[in-house]
Amino acid sequence: MRILIANPNTTEAVTRRLVETAAPAVAAGTELVGATAPRGVPYIASRAEAQIGGAVLLEMLCERIGTFDAAVVAAFGDPGLGGARELLDVPVVGLAEAAMASALMLGRRFAVVTFAVALEAWYAETIEAYALATRSAGVFCADRPFTDLEGVREEMADHLVALAGRAVAAGADTVILGGAPLAGLAARVHDRIPVPAVDPVVAAVKQAEALVALGVRKPVAGTFRRPPPKRSTGLADALARRIGENAP
Amino acid sequence: MRILIANPNTTEAVTRRLVETAAPAVAAGTELVGATAPRGVPYIASRAEAQIGGAVLLEMLCERIGTFDAAVVAAFGDPGLGGARELLDVPVVGLAEAAMASALMLGRRFAVVTFAVALEAWYAETIEAYALATRSAGVFCADRPFTDLEGVREEMADHLVALAGRAVAAGADTVILGGAPLAGLAARVHDRIPVPAVDPVVAAVKQAEALVALGVRKPVAGTFRRPPPKRSTGLADALARRIGENAP
Amino acid sequence: MRILIANPNTTEAVTRRLVETAAPAVAAGTELVGATAPRGVPYIASRAEAQIGGAVLLEMLCERIGTFDAAVVAAFGDPGLGGARELLDVPVVGLAEAAMASALMLGRRFAVVTFAVALEAWYAETIEAYALATRSAGVFCADRPFTDLEGVREEMADHLVALAGRAVAAGADTVILGGAPLAGLAARVHDRIPVPAVDPVVAAVKQAEALVALGVRKPVAGTFRRPPPKRSTGLADALARRIGENAP
Amino acid sequence: MRILIANPNTTEAVTRRLVETAAPAVAAGTELVGATAPRGVPYIASRAEAQIGGAVLLEMLCERIGTFDAAVVAAFGDPGLGGARELLDVPVVGLAEAAMASALMLGRRFAVVTFAVALEAWYAETIEAYALATRSAGVFCADRPFTDLEGVREEMADHLVALAGRAVAAGADTVILGGAPLAGLAARVHDRIPVPAVDPVVAAVKQAEALVALGVRKPVAGTFRRPPPKRSTGLADALARRIGENAP
Amino acid sequence: MRILIANPNTTEAVTRRLVETAAPAVAAGTELVGATAPRGVPYIASRAEAQIGGAVLLEMLCERIGTFDAAVVAAFGDPGLGGARELLDVPVVGLAEAAMASALMLGRRFAVVTFAVALEAWYAETIEAYALATRSAGVFCADRPFTDLEGVREEMADHLVALAGRAVAAGADTVILGGAPLAGLAARVHDRIPVPAVDPVVAAVKQAEALVALGVRKPVAGTFRRPPPKRSTGLADALARRIGENAP
Amino acid sequence: MRILIANPNTTEAVTRRLVETAAPAVAAGTELVGATAPRGVPYIASRAEAQIGGAVLLEMLCERIGTFDAAVVAAFGDPGLGGARELLDVPVVGLAEAAMASALMLGRRFAVVTFAVALEAWYAETIEAYALATRSAGVFCADRPFTDLEGVREEMADHLVALAGRAVAAGADTVILGGAPLAGLAARVHDRIPVPAVDPVVAAVKQAEALVALGVRKPVAGTFRRPPPKRSTGLADALARRIGENAP
Repeated sequence: MRILIANPNTTEAVTRRLVETAAPAVAAGTELVGATAPRGVPYIASRAEAQIGGAVLLEMLCERIGTFDAAVVAAFGDPGLGGARELLDVPVVGLAEAAMASALMLGRRFAVVTFAVALEAWYAETIEAYALATRSAGVFCADRPFTDLEGVREEMADHLVALAGRAVAAGADTVILGGAPLAGLAARVHDRIPVPAVDPVVAAVKQAEALVALGVRKPVAGTFRRPPPKRSTGLADALARRIGENAP
Repeated sequence: MRILIANPNTTEAVTRRLVETAAPAVAAGTELVGATAPRGVPYIASRAEAQIGGAVLLEMLCERIGTFDAAVVAAFGDPGLGGARELLDVPVVGLAEAAMASALMLGRRFAVVTFAVALEAWYAETIEAYALATRSAGVFCADRPFTDLEGVREEMADHLVALAGRAVAAGADTVILGGAPLAGLAARVHDRIPVPAVDPVVAAVKQAEALVALGVRKPVAGTFRRPPPKRSTGLADALARRIGENAP
Repeated sequence: MRILIANPNTTEAVTRRLVETAAPAVAAGTELVGATAPRGVPYIASRAEAQIGGAVLLEMLCERIGTFDAAVVAAFGDPGLGGARELLDVPVVGLAEAAMASALMLGRRFAVVTFAVALEAWYAETIEAYALATRSAGVFCADRPFTDLEGVREEMADHLVALAGRAVAAGADTVILGGAPLAGLAARVHDRIPVPAVDPVVAAVKQAEALVALGVRKPVAGTFRRPPPKRSTGLADALARRIGENAP
Repeated sequence: MRILIANPNTTEAVTRRLVETAAPAVAAGTELVGATAPRGVPYIASRAEAQIGGAVLLEMLCERIGTFDAAVVAAFGDPGLGGARELLDVPVVGLAEAAMASALMLGRRFAVVTFAVALEAWYAETIEAYALATRSAGVFCADRPFTDLEGVREEMADHLVALAGRAVAAGADTVILGGAPLAGLAARVHDRIPVPAVDPVVAAVKQAEALVALGVRKPVAGTFRRPPPKRSTGLADALARRIGENAP
Repeated sequence: MRILIANPNTTEAVTRRLVETAAPAVAAGTELVGATAPRGVPYIASRAEAQIGGAVLLEMLCERIGTFDAAVVAAFGDPGLGGARELLDVPVVGLAEAAMASALMLGRRFAVVTFAVALEAWYAETIEAYALATRSAGVFCADRPFTDLEGVREEMADHLVALAGRAVAAGADTVILGGAPLAGLAARVHDRIPVPAVDPVVAAVKQAEALVALGVRKPVAGTFRRPPPKRSTGLADALARRIGENAP
Repeated sequence: MRILIANPNTTEAVTRRLVETAAPAVAAGTELVGATAPRGVPYIASRAEAQIGGAVLLEMLCERIGTFDAAVVAAFGDPGLGGARELLDVPVVGLAEAAMASALMLGRRFAVVTFAVALEAWYAETIEAYALATRSAGVFCADRPFTDLEGVREEMADHLVALAGRAVAAGADTVILGGAPLAGLAARVHDRIPVPAVDPVVAAVKQAEALVALGVRKPVAGTFRRPPPKRSTGLADALARRIGENAP
């Protein structure tokens, strides 16, 4: 099985880190392939950037149709996930969604701990969009600037552990270390956090494997069937083709 | 006051109809200007199309910054609205949002009545995204195909009136005739619907006027302040410039 | 268009202030007329007082039927609003309702900031009654006594600005300055509050204008149609007449 | 212990029926006293009528302060209950509230079955106001006119039993026969309804007894403490006196 | 009327205290009988212990069928309540459920104040299971160890009063002193708590009386009818018999 | 990795079927071991039976501590799951919980389709207990009796497919075939259901694998840490020992 890790951010180093973090967790026979957004921002942190990044993600996926058995939307916040699920015939999961689904089986309430205040609104709206606010203990954001995106994981490690402690005091049974640049952090600090710590990309590849193992079909009814074909103007070729074609 | 009616669909005839429908409702001194998406689909009807259309909308708005006092996202479902509100310094409202806000003052529950089943999921998720499901009596969709987008308003009028009746029987105190191509229908059929019928584009321009009259400022705190400036790659010029610049 | 600003409190100075605050915001052709409760309390601040004031409001409105095109229930908390909407054939909006509807288009969560602790329960229940608690960041009340009702706006200004700051820190994207005696404060302090500040009476007249512009009809079905006629005993003449008559 | 059954409707026959229905259910030593609204409508069935009736109820209670140990607001929908609870020093319960509280202990979801469509909106809003919608299977209303209020209980009995059956099919574990004129019906038909049938006035007097037995105090904090004293104009003497006096 | 107070904990002293606390509150003619779990833990404080204790409770009740007119599940958290309500033909109420139902009639939000942090999760989930979280101001737990279960009521009294004060500051209109070992405390401290204090076992016996007075029948439809008879293996005799027999 | 499939029902044939259904889906290196309840009922279908079965499950798990890396509570409805998660140091997942978590990634709303009306209440309460009602389109139950438990899967196949169709019409994006005796059905009928069909035991083993792959620790804080040790009376040896011992 081949899982595409599609990063709607433009930072290739983060894509590599996501693949490296997830690799040890996959089953024998699962191959991970990374892809990085050809345009957009280094890391998505606002509604505007998610709107743009999600549209780019759809192009990335459509260009690669037929080369993967499942896909991961590799930005916490899952930009473009709903549209991707409509357009593709294979399972697609998001980092945020997969981490939360896993966290539901580890405790009553989960907290999302992340590295920048700017992410708070987007993450909180993601939780609400999935109708999981009742299961959430909140989004806990580092309150200080970081030096560079690739180093934020190491630079912030102690601070994020402290934030996780605050999240637990506020009622969290589980801590999700959200934000693609934090991939790999959970394994490094999980003995310093008193509750289960979830690494979203690990959760996502395992959830993708699970959906493939379930053998689920592409819906031909319901809200995630392929939308009716539609002509378009000025869109990227692969995306336009996919939008324009009839479901088989 | 100049209000930009920004249509994230590519159908210019719909943009014209929106402006014509709203024109008689505005106050003396309000000018309406239409804009139509330069790329995308003729009418957005799925999550994927909304993802794309919302990104195009951000470009359209950024290209016109400085030429309007308020903007209307002129597709029911409001693609890109959150991001637009972050990026712009003037009020932005969506057709769906404005219609629902108005409907809240006309009764306990509103229904959305529209012309295609394909729109159901997107509209329902929009209502949920605004946390207004408790105030909704549901989305009621025509169950038959239509001939062409520009004529759907006339072709479907009788059927939509019948659907509105069903919505009222299901508990609706108000009916929103959702979908940009239906602009102007409410005025034509409101005496055949036993409860208030809301035309979203009329609601939207009036809500835009109201926000301007309130004299509200651009937030410099909270989740709709301008996001921190960020470099980007490959985005449309005006959009890249706006994302990259410091808030004044 | 003539809008009646019906104050269910007995303080005429507040009625005058409401009219003066709203006047600059209305469209050309809109006329504002104030009315003050002939009996009741100087300002409503409890459930009991709202129960009484709302009943008086119904009398005030019925006595003036035919002289206005829309009405504003001019106490934040909207006493009697539901009943007024049943009995009248023209749109009726409440200060609280209109301010919240406007705030929905300015951010994710709004806070209500007000001048007396005694108001907290009533305001909080109003938000819940409109099913908008998910969109609320709370009610923030001044924790100190004020000297006199007419001067509370000036006396409390600094304190309310500070409270607004606390509301923003608690997650508010928008601040509603609630309580009729605060009318006009938003314009004076909005540059000291880092998010949009909503003046309820301005919101209310603009929402009333919007509903008239929408051309909505009096419902003859749904829960806000005129209740069946009923004989009564001992009620004020105009109210008894309205309750007793058939809808046209 | 003396319990006042305060009927905010003007129909004395209903007051008598309420007392007669509840009498066999009270404990030794409990005395029931009825009171009927001196003005208002024969039976409250709309928001407007509830607004008025609730204000009259406050007068009725204040005029009788000191003569009862607990009070029942004897119209399903509980007009004026919140205000009464603020103003009085003894427990006050409503027919709707007490019936629902009892129903919570008889099953997962309760339905309200009643005799007139006109009551639907008010009853549904009452359930929502108590935040019990999740526990409700809906309000089921007779869809036909009745001849006279005093005979509706007998005239509608068969139809209401059939409605109760529909409510059970829709998921109700318990049926509340709502509406003061139906007092006494539950005992007559409970063997024809396959789930527990709750008579609101019986529930209410038992809940009043329970609150007295609990020995609960008048709050001096929280939202049901006595509101601060306030001068008023033109209100009924006893009510004005109560609103104007300091809590002891 | 005979009410069985069935304690799913193994501590007989607590059973005695429950009976003694409730005795003065019951009506003439009501007899209270205690029963203590023959196996299990001294006091239930976790989900695991509630799972076990609830199963023992079902045995206790089935062994006594025919000897009582109503039963009280006498551990706050109500282990086994749903199953008991299915299996028995007479009303069954839980301490938590009854206390909350009573509290609903005393204010907007109730708080549960209790003697051990270990109880927090179970109590919070109980509130959620009853869909009453909107009416709750939270669970407030003593943050210090206690010497012995029978003395915790006296030892903790001052601390619990202080916690109650904090609960009121956090928005509670009513305080429930939860946990069977605290039976009788409310009466001793209610003048030191500024809002009504509810003693769960008093609430429970009064609610049991109320349900008997309502004359409600055993459902033969809905989700609390007797489950279809089923053969079983290895269960306690009385329980196996009850599960195996047809409803009459 | 060894996963224990612990069936709280007494039917060994169902345990075998669960293992056989899940076996093809697990990763290389995962071993499945079944265990069947030594006492209880053939299949749990009511709250009472779940209360008992959940207590037996805790015994089953405690007797096998140290022999598995993760456990599955193998009855849809997940009896005893919360307690098991407290007591064990390894991940525990329930059939219902795992199926729903997977379904969250396949669409907006899921439906549970099952073979007996008796299961409806228990399943519906399970969905509510996980706070996932917003994501549910309902529980759809076969309305006819079945001949024997082991054959119900084949006997009911056509009827359940039809029910799934009804669920989709009612808004389900995904169908969960709930009830342990239906294990293996999804694979046989998934091409006759127009949306993804989830087999709970497949979901459960994959979720168990995912949690092990995540490397999550046993919490030492939050609500799923081991409860404080407690002496007990009369419980099964292994369970008593586990409850009585200190967490390491």
